[in-house]
Order: sequence, then C-alpha cells, then structure tokens
Amino acid sequence: MSDEIHQKFMREAINLSIDNVKSGKGGPFGAVIVKDGQIIARGTNLVTSSNDPTAHAEVVAIRNACKELGTFQLDNCDIYTSCEPCPMCLGAIYWSRPARLFFANTKKDAAEIQFDDNFIYEEIEIPYQNRSLLTQQILRDEALEAFRLWRTSNIKMEY
Amino acid sequence: MSDEIHQKFMREAINLSIDNVKSGKGGPFGAVIVKDGQIIARGTNLVTSSNDPTAHAEVVAIRNACKELGTFQLDNCDIYTSCEPCPMCLGAIYWSRPARLFFANTKKDAAEIQFDDNFIYEEIEIPYQNRSLLTQQILRDEALEAFRLWRTSNIKMEY
Repeated sequence: MSDEIHQKFMREAINLSIDNVKSGKGGPFGAVIVKDGQIIARGTNLVTSSNDPTAHAEVVAIRNACKELGTFQLDNCDIYTSCEPCPMCLGAIYWSRPARLFFANTKKDAAEIQFDDNFIYEEIEIPYQNRSLLTQQILRDEALEAFRLWRTSNIKMEY
Repeated sequence: MSDEIHQKFMREAINLSIDNVKSGKGGPFGAVIVKDGQIIARGTNLVTSSNDPTAHAEVVAIRNACKELGTFQLDNCDIYTSCEPCPMCLGAIYWSRPARLFFANTKKDAAEIQFDDNFIYEEIEIPYQNRSLLTQQILRDEALEAFRLWRTSNIKMEY
C-alpha cells in the first residue's frame, strides 16, 4: 500500500479520537482495523462511559473486528491507532496477531496529558517484587495441575 | 488477611482454571476478584469459545467486577489469578487500580505449554522498530489535535 493509503486510514483513527473527546464518551483515542483495503472495525476509548477499564480504542476495535470476522485472530489485518498502544493494548494486539501496526501520538505524548501508559511500561519492565502494585506469588504447585491437564487434554483448542 | 484466606481465594482461581480445561472453554487460566473478604467476580480464559483474543481470565474478571460495582476502578479490591498475568492483563490490572495482586504459575510455566506470555514480555521491552510485529509511526502532528482538545475539554472525565 502507498503512504497515502496508510494516511487515509490513520486519519480515520484520528477523526475517531477527536470525535470521542467532543462527545465526552472517553479519552482522546481512536483505532481502525483494515483488511483487504477496507475498514472492518472501529474503536474509541469507552472506559468511563462503559465502566470498563479495558475498553481502550485498540481493544474495542479488536473485539469488534473479531466479531465481524467470527475468529479470534486478525490474520492479514492492519491496525491503525491514533496513539502508541499502552502495554494492555500492545499485548492485545500481539494476541490477535495482525500483520502490521501503525500509530501516531507517542506514549510520552499520552503521559503529558496525564495518562498512565508510560508509567505502566516502566512497571512492567521491573521485577514484580519491586513494583508499586503489591504483588505476591502463592500456591504455584497446586496451580500447575491445570497446566498438566492442558498438556494431555484432547479437546483443547490451541492458539 | 491471613495466609490461609489468601490461599482460599487462590484455590478458587485454580479450580476455575482446571474446570476451564475440562469444559474445553479455553486456556488453563482462572481469576477471582475479592472485595471486603468476598469474591465479587470470577473469570476464565474464553478466547477461543467467545472469539475474543482479549478474553483472558483476568480481563474477564475485571470486566465482571466493574459491572458488579458499577465503576471503572477496583478500589480496595484484590486480584487472584492462577498464572502470572501476561502484559495485556498486567496492563488491564494497572488501569483498574486494585490494591493487591496474587498469582500462582509463572509466565515461564505458561511458555512451557506454548502460550506467548513470555514472548510478548520480550517484545514490549525492545524499541518498536526492532519488534517482530512490523510497526510504524505516521501523522503524529495531526493526531496531537485530539490531545490538545482533551486538555481544554470541560466535559472530560479523567481517570
């Protein structure tokens, strides 16, 4: 695809982010998912209006795209998001396995308007014992039973 | 809370993870969210059965808890998850702002049964230009308009 086409899709993500601020539905973030040159799903940040802290633009767009495609994998899809994904959204993007990712604003831009993206990146990179969120490991021996069952399950769907 | 109480809640998360393998609904992961000594929400991995790559146990439990509480923040809640959260879930946990996090299996245990958690952690920690997912930044100047609007919006709900 030419640069112009990529810009067209990113401008749609940006327009969504702008409209989301104007409507008061949530944070200044928008995303679109493209397959075969067509937008198949859109998403905006709906955290505060839907009482769902996971409802970031990218997560909403991924859920909508998977519903549209009837699958849990975004094969051959591109994701255009108006801001560099936070760790939650980047993780969601990896799990959905698209072909490419395009972003516009950076996590530092987001930090400057008081979003925690950069802080969460910093937390993820340090050992859990040192994080600001109190984190403790317990009962690993018992929990491993589920993983043993998974190994030998003949009804599992791997992904 | 005593160690015994923490173990009781973690055993519930572990039981959910085991039942999820037996039912074939998804991966071997379970989570519970506790407030004031009571379980207020449960979650299991429903990725393949709900066609939602974001439907990990922790994300499902957080969504359920927020629905239960009618809020987008898990104030004074503890999260018990049968496996160390992947970056997506850890991000979701930070955004939901619980008091504490307890986990049992590790991301390396998950990697041994072919889940990508550890791989995604490695990818997040390197510059986006070097990641296995092709990633490109475009149109930042245009996207910043949404952030400028956010700064001056008088209808925004910050979080």
